[in-house]
Amino acid sequence: MKTRAYGNGSAEQPLAPMEIDRRQPRARDVAIDILFSGVCHSDLHTAWNEWNNTSYPCIPGHEIVGRVTAVGADVQRYKAGDIVGVGCMIDSCRTCASCHDGDEQYCTGSGFVGTYNAPDKHSGGHTFGGYSGHIVVDEDFVLTVSHDEKDLAGVAPLLCAGITTYSPLRHWKVGPGQKVGVVGLGGLGHMGVKIAAAMGAEVTVFTTSENKREDALRLGASHVVNSRDGAAMAAQAGQFNLILNTVAAPHDLDPFLQALKRDGTMVMVGVPPEPHKSPSVGNLVFGRRSIAGSLIGGIAETQEMLDFCRDHGLTADIELIPMDGINDAFHRMVKGDVKYRFVIDIATLN
Amino acid sequence: MKTRAYGNGSAEQPLAPMEIDRRQPRARDVAIDILFSGVCHSDLHTAWNEWNNTSYPCIPGHEIVGRVTAVGADVQRYKAGDIVGVGCMIDSCRTCASCHDGDEQYCTGSGFVGTYNAPDKHSGGHTFGGYSGHIVVDEDFVLTVSHDEKDLAGVAPLLCAGITTYSPLRHWKVGPGQKVGVVGLGGLGHMGVKIAAAMGAEVTVFTTSENKREDALRLGASHVVNSRDGAAMAAQAGQFNLILNTVAAPHDLDPFLQALKRDGTMVMVGVPPEPHKSPSVGNLVFGRRSIAGSLIGGIAETQEMLDFCRDHGLTADIELIPMDGINDAFHRMVKGDVKYRFVIDIATLN
Repeated sequence: MKTRAYGNGSAEQPLAPMEIDRRQPRARDVAIDILFSGVCHSDLHTAWNEWNNTSYPCIPGHEIVGRVTAVGADVQRYKAGDIVGVGCMIDSCRTCASCHDGDEQYCTGSGFVGTYNAPDKHSGGHTFGGYSGHIVVDEDFVLTVSHDEKDLAGVAPLLCAGITTYSPLRHWKVGPGQKVGVVGLGGLGHMGVKIAAAMGAEVTVFTTSENKREDALRLGASHVVNSRDGAAMAAQAGQFNLILNTVAAPHDLDPFLQALKRDGTMVMVGVPPEPHKSPSVGNLVFGRRSIAGSLIGGIAETQEMLDFCRDHGLTADIELIPMDGINDAFHRMVKGDVKYRFVIDIATLN
Repeated sequence: MKTRAYGNGSAEQPLAPMEIDRRQPRARDVAIDILFSGVCHSDLHTAWNEWNNTSYPCIPGHEIVGRVTAVGADVQRYKAGDIVGVGCMIDSCRTCASCHDGDEQYCTGSGFVGTYNAPDKHSGGHTFGGYSGHIVVDEDFVLTVSHDEKDLAGVAPLLCAGITTYSPLRHWKVGPGQKVGVVGLGGLGHMGVKIAAAMGAEVTVFTTSENKREDALRLGASHVVNSRDGAAMAAQAGQFNLILNTVAAPHDLDPFLQALKRDGTMVMVGVPPEPHKSPSVGNLVFGRRSIAGSLIGGIAETQEMLDFCRDHGLTADIELIPMDGINDAFHRMVKGDVKYRFVIDIATLN
């Protein structure tokens, strides 16, 4: 099935219209017309081959909301007309301990199959993502979207930015009475603030951008700390149960470790291109503190996150762009010029 | 009360006999004739002022086993003749959340009061440790030692090396069916192996010393891996629930992080004099792994550890030395020439 898409054939090329093949739905497949596709930093890293692992042509996009057009004979949970989501994964080995536990994102069998730029075991070649009109996905990796239709563009970023922040907040049992810090107020951070506040935590945003102070409070934070202000940082010592660190740029982790309570954890959700300064082991030892990492979330947990966001009226703050605005959007993202997620209106693809 | 002791008056001096004052027991105090005093690396770091925080004269020693000689009027739990232990702490604020939770080692009020080289709020000056004939300690910081009397020299190191390894193994819930790694086979590591094995875990020792292989197996390890062997390390990937890292010397943490399972934790119990190479955040993110720190253990937990070791017949492997052998012992420790803890026979002090 020929499908219109937007991608590039090499790192040097801007994204441009192209045509790709999607398979006919098999027995357990769900065929989806894509409505909205969020724009994640991973998209530009991959399109520009910044991780040196890109297969071309590259069609990015793993924050997908669409409408089911057809389902295979054995599909149980979806029917034509349903509004659904597809996130960062479209398959995994399904048999390893991680898959068994619903942590498909940590699959140790095949590794999870990325929505784009991963080997495509059905059609050969590699997978193509959401910057396209249509996608076909095994029903086990399709999510139910039950938000109001008017909110669907803002739902798309939940499939990556939402679950990336929800999963560690849930895993480390954030709730009322707890103090949570969120480092960085970008696509991930702004969702971290909304979700942590909705979970009942008292949220502090750590930012280097004074001009994000008002936004942070509007999004649900109770406090904002300029992390370049040494005295303000020192005043946070020993305060936080959990700090969600969304900043991938190399930075000094120690002031944040010092801000943790005894038994507190700082969870990193961004991998820096160059190492952070080596964190002080003393800050871990004196307080039994931890530094952890977390990667997106499992499929069942992604559904739980979507339902949680629906129940709490949470969507991403977005700027809706036409498909041919993607190259400008990439360049604006590099400058941090987005509040807080670009979402492509896929209707503009044709 | 004049007491014989062994200490130094400046970093440049070797330890030598001196006389110190101990207070008369107050209502809640326990007066103890010291029988054995273990020798911890902290002792030489402090005596030699390597942490630039030493008050002189310096009398080290925080792995103390002795016999009660007298108790204050309000002491409930001890009487003359009892065999008791004193570890790294002799007091704390007793009111902060950490103290309330039995985690006095993380006291955020006054900070815990070290057995030596801490301000002495009763007598003025600073506290003097176990390289001495006698000590007076508030009963709340005195431990019951119920091992056989013949084992008492080997019990002394449990008060620091034992609890430093027991506490994280217990906190992270080590038990049967789990794989535990112990990095480094020194004073701490050899206790970590014994305790983790006694808890029912399958223990692997990571060492750079091939000649420790037999000892590791004798102490309770099931496997020994030379951590300089890249292929052997790669074969450990994704295997461990917990890795107890006892090595303070700067080293590459990444092969050990990679050896953790999903949700595994590496606990650091040594603070390096210079930073470790910055650990890979990717190794944390891809597997939801953690790096944590842990400091000794609380008083109630120290009692639990002593009882656990008694029940499992665990003591430290020691080399008993006379008091005047301490300077040689320090120099041998710097070279790693000790299996696995020096203990001073305090009877040799007089």
